[in-house]
Amino acid sequence: MKLTKDTKILIIGLGVMGGSYAKALTDQGYKVSCITKEAADLRIGLEGGMIYKGSCEVEPELVSEAELIIFALYPAAFIGWIEKYQHLISPGTVITDVTGVKSGVVYKVQEMLRDDVEYIAAHPMAGRERSGVEYADPSVFRGANYIVTPTEKNSLEAIKLCKTLGEELGFLRISELAPEEHDRMIAFLSQLTHIIAVTLMNCNDSDGLEKYTGDSFRDLTRIAKINDRMWSELFLMNKEALLDEMDRFMEEFAEFRSYLAAEDGKRMREKMRSSSARRSLFDKPAK
Amino acid sequence: MKLTKDTKILIIGLGVMGGSYAKALTDQGYKVSCITKEAADLRIGLEGGMIYKGSCEVEPELVSEAELIIFALYPAAFIGWIEKYQHLISPGTVITDVTGVKSGVVYKVQEMLRDDVEYIAAHPMAGRERSGVEYADPSVFRGANYIVTPTEKNSLEAIKLCKTLGEELGFLRISELAPEEHDRMIAFLSQLTHIIAVTLMNCNDSDGLEKYTGDSFRDLTRIAKINDRMWSELFLMNKEALLDEMDRFMEEFAEFRSYLAAEDGKRMREKMRSSSARRSLFDKPAK
Repeated sequence: MKLTKDTKILIIGLGVMGGSYAKALTDQGYKVSCITKEAADLRIGLEGGMIYKGSCEVEPELVSEAELIIFALYPAAFIGWIEKYQHLISPGTVITDVTGVKSGVVYKVQEMLRDDVEYIAAHPMAGRERSGVEYADPSVFRGANYIVTPTEKNSLEAIKLCKTLGEELGFLRISELAPEEHDRMIAFLSQLTHIIAVTLMNCNDSDGLEKYTGDSFRDLTRIAKINDRMWSELFLMNKEALLDEMDRFMEEFAEFRSYLAAEDGKRMREKMRSSSARRSLFDKPAK
Repeated sequence: MKLTKDTKILIIGLGVMGGSYAKALTDQGYKVSCITKEAADLRIGLEGGMIYKGSCEVEPELVSEAELIIFALYPAAFIGWIEKYQHLISPGTVITDVTGVKSGVVYKVQEMLRDDVEYIAAHPMAGRERSGVEYADPSVFRGANYIVTPTEKNSLEAIKLCKTLGEELGFLRISELAPEEHDRMIAFLSQLTHIIAVTLMNCNDSDGLEKYTGDSFRDLTRIAKINDRMWSELFLMNKEALLDEMDRFMEEFAEFRSYLAAEDGKRMREKMRSSSARRSLFDKPAK
């Protein structure tokens, strides 16, 4: 199956991510339908021109006519949906997702899925602090990474389709990683950073600090406004990799602390020079 | 003494901060001179219209004609300058500074300073990751905090002068804190955040991570590019307060880790809800 403007695309779950997908694809000329729980979200999707039709029920016809289904649900809800409704999916359909962890989802879903439906997993590495379809905005995809995480069960055709989807959504860099590699990377780059932000926000509750705050503190805590239900699921599904990264961070932090306690300016400066040099690698590429 | 457009202002040290002060004040119509070490910096200051005259030597006349002297030096260099050259300062002159820590500087300098010269300390809470006068840019002061840290040795007149200076520089909020309060606040809001950024940047040196990084990681490590000489001085001068804040952070981080290890989603979610609520306090005020 190839992605064309006639491909019937169904999005399951119209939140901030599902809505951004819908908007991006509709803007590109695709016909997008959706199934989502809340009538209010469906209305926003229809009135905002993100989708051309949809339902708050799992309507058999909406599911069976779809050729590409994109799941924009929390991990547990995604797995639960497949268990309950996969019999409604037509043979030959490709399904993909937006889940932020992979090993714990991909193998489970591929294991339980019918042989005549293919699930190719992907992680769009872009998001907003706010949740809800009213915050949907595909411009967050520009300059961002889209990672496809195939397994040996996937066909080259589906991998290609999924990469084309990433391009059509407007992502800058489309790449491929094994689910386990993806999860180690995400434990460090995304999950650890969220826990640091939450911790920093919680570790000092003195009154009035907000009066004196500067940009550094604001930058480090921007992501401390966090969707607690989604992230606790993601943390738990990636527990081992995340615990490893947390331990590495703690060890490094304790090392810096020991230099400060010993008034070892030389070693502190070495750490700062090393971080300065390494940070240059991470500068945003010019668009 | 009152600040007027005729006040003779001398800036000692034309780096990114001294240059930004010079530019802001010159733009407001003040006459600003400077003393700085490097001829190249002096040239940038003159050619960029930041100052109208200056020298790379501590010229007695430049110092003695000044009515307001602003020290934009690293802490140790500031203290050293006072020791060596304070005899050149004219009676009645007010001096101020931009140093990022206060207790370790203010009392020492006030102690050694002549009785006929007044030092009123201040901390402009704005900056850039880059150092050097070529990055001077007073627009970073807009929306930022300017904190005056008087002691019992200061006159109301000098405190008022210093606050007026903050206003003229373009700061949004001018406030007053005791040096010790300032240092506790800065240990948390600024120094701890810099150490976290450095640690995060150093704790995982896997190859290729930059290919997958998103905005969260970039935000948390922006300040990991750091002036190691200046910051190690600032950390060491505020050692006790900073060690306290580091310990509080580590304790809170370890608590979150224990919830994850125990798969206690409920407690993780409580932490995230608390951080989300508290973070709202720190949103940037609309300008």
